[in-house]
Amino acid sequence: MLRFSLLSPSSSRARAGLLTTPHGQVPTPAFMPVGTQAAVKAVTPEDLRAAGATIVLSNTYHLYLRPGVKLIEQFGGLHRFMGWDGPILTDSGGFQVFSLGHMRKLTEEGATFRSHIDGSEHRLTPELAVAYQEALGSDIAMVLDHCPAYGESPEAIAEATERTHRWAERSLKAQRRGDQALFAIVQGGWSSDLRRESARRLAGMGFPGYAIGGVSVGEPKALAYRAVEDAEPHLPKEKPRYLMGVGSPEDLVQCIARGIDLFDCALPTRVARNGSLFTRQGRVSIRNAKHRDMDAPFDASCDCYACKTFSAAYLHHLFKSDEILYHRLGTIHNLRFILRLMEESRAAILGGTFDAFARAFLDGYKSTDEETRLEQKGKWAAAREARGLQEE
Amino acid sequence: MLRFSLLSPSSSRARAGLLTTPHGQVPTPAFMPVGTQAAVKAVTPEDLRAAGATIVLSNTYHLYLRPGVKLIEQFGGLHRFMGWDGPILTDSGGFQVFSLGHMRKLTEEGATFRSHIDGSEHRLTPELAVAYQEALGSDIAMVLDHCPAYGESPEAIAEATERTHRWAERSLKAQRRGDQALFAIVQGGWSSDLRRESARRLAGMGFPGYAIGGVSVGEPKALAYRAVEDAEPHLPKEKPRYLMGVGSPEDLVQCIARGIDLFDCALPTRVARNGSLFTRQGRVSIRNAKHRDMDAPFDASCDCYACKTFSAAYLHHLFKSDEILYHRLGTIHNLRFILRLMEESRAAILGGTFDAFARAFLDGYKSTDEETRLEQKGKWAAAREARGLQEE
Repeated sequence: MLRFSLLSPSSSRARAGLLTTPHGQVPTPAFMPVGTQAAVKAVTPEDLRAAGATIVLSNTYHLYLRPGVKLIEQFGGLHRFMGWDGPILTDSGGFQVFSLGHMRKLTEEGATFRSHIDGSEHRLTPELAVAYQEALGSDIAMVLDHCPAYGESPEAIAEATERTHRWAERSLKAQRRGDQALFAIVQGGWSSDLRRESARRLAGMGFPGYAIGGVSVGEPKALAYRAVEDAEPHLPKEKPRYLMGVGSPEDLVQCIARGIDLFDCALPTRVARNGSLFTRQGRVSIRNAKHRDMDAPFDASCDCYACKTFSAAYLHHLFKSDEILYHRLGTIHNLRFILRLMEESRAAILGGTFDAFARAFLDGYKSTDEETRLEQKGKWAAAREARGLQEE
Repeated sequence: MLRFSLLSPSSSRARAGLLTTPHGQVPTPAFMPVGTQAAVKAVTPEDLRAAGATIVLSNTYHLYLRPGVKLIEQFGGLHRFMGWDGPILTDSGGFQVFSLGHMRKLTEEGATFRSHIDGSEHRLTPELAVAYQEALGSDIAMVLDHCPAYGESPEAIAEATERTHRWAERSLKAQRRGDQALFAIVQGGWSSDLRRESARRLAGMGFPGYAIGGVSVGEPKALAYRAVEDAEPHLPKEKPRYLMGVGSPEDLVQCIARGIDLFDCALPTRVARNGSLFTRQGRVSIRNAKHRDMDAPFDASCDCYACKTFSAAYLHHLFKSDEILYHRLGTIHNLRFILRLMEESRAAILGGTFDAFARAFLDGYKSTDEETRLEQKGKWAAAREARGLQEE
């Protein structure tokens, strides 16, 4: 079963902890690389370990459709199927079903949706989401929640939030396995009252961990930060808190500062494949002409395999030449950047210097500006939709 | 400089040798994985070593156009640029310029061609091909040859063969570096007389190694085997022989039996990416439904990383789900299969049992039938042309 110990001084909101799962320990704050289809795109489990990953995320929606939950169960679960023997958290599929337009019908019982692969119709209920995740054998499962799209009315958001609470109760009752922790998901949209209410209601149900959901759906960053600030004080201190779908470097630091322990996001791996690599100064495109003849690592301060082994010029050449190898190297770099940021944040928290660390990091890191960010996100969402969700 | 020692008993045509280059030794017969653009698609130098590669091939035509020979020279050569510290053979670019339709004008002086990247016009002469390869710093360079397309007239082939001989002489004179071995290329098309003549003429020039070129251009297998049989007896026994562009498992065994020491081919890596994996029984598609729930390695007798680490079902899932990771794993499997076949062939030659080994292998291995093979090759060539040569 799941254990969580807080190791940090209580004076700060930022927390350092240790999450113990049936498949090993996760020092927190932690970032979970996203392996939607039982693989983190372009890398092996060994690459993940080498980059410092301690836990990965996979997705019930995708695995249910392909290769099927039953098949993975026959293999003794997701760990063995994908060759990752460390902790795994599975998302319930709520986000995919509700926010991405494949939902066909929603009732109190659950949702009916169409497969993005072959258009076939499927049903997902809180009970089925628990059963599927128990079959997958993840260490941490997520309840099925109702995640409203960005821009829905306050009434619709209130209704989705209430439904999420009722579904959370049903999910708890549906649990059969004793070795899988089930996390609740706080909704509440952009209303502080509703966020607080949602956190309190779910906290009262005694889950072993809590996620903040309904963010990273296209809103301005300030709204996501406020949602965290609204919910956080009402979540039990001794339980892990997970902010879903958030993972740009600045957001990680900002939300560690706001008391979050766990994160996941496809952004680091997705932008890597598009040529955008993290540095302490911000995202830099490997396409830039300055890398063409750069006879030095892309980032001399980085300890990832790509930076230790190859020059920036070689990465630039691979990218320009459409060589698949670039995808792996770029992915390894961005993952290592994020995972190291988490390691350094944790050390700073434990050393009592996190505020200074965060200030220095945020001062030095030039974020992608809000307009560009939302535009990119829009483009990506459209492309994703067009490709039937195949792209993370 | 290059040294070559033959280790095998002289009773058989099949030879086992040891090629010593400035960057290390190559036990022969050897297969060279193809890294056209200074990268073997989807794998790192470490992956290549782990699969048993001892030498890789790269392509002057591609590197000249991108990132440019000058740039690689500034990096101290191709070895350092691509992070492979073992032996490298570079092809001269003749095959690309002549057989793939980008050639604009041919004179005795050389060829003018258009870049497949931006349409710009470039010139290649025997002297420039040597100079470029000396700048790249490969261990073995190839002369610029005139490689006729399949189906050209006997007259055109005779002319190309004669020109290849004159260019070979010019290439020898153009050499400046003492630490790079220059190999000649036998042409002669499908005329036994011309093949013999070409081998004899070039042998008389005293090259440190000889390639048989002009095969693998769309001809039936029997013609390629005959070209080898025609040329081989006229090449000096004590020099390495390299058959260009040949690398299906059955062709490797057939041509080792005919006295070839070195091979290169993009086929093993290309078909891997398309889902076609080698087994001792023949090529098998990872797409096959039988792999869907196969809780065992794809090939239990294979010692590659993919087979030792993952189930066939997982590889099948990755392929069906368009996961990039499949490309790396499939590539590693096919390379290991080929490289192991070379290791086993060599051991059999040294043990005096190669004939039996080859017979057993060829009896067990179901080749792709000739019609399908030529059809696939045509499709691939068309796709390649459409994509401007970017695909190997």
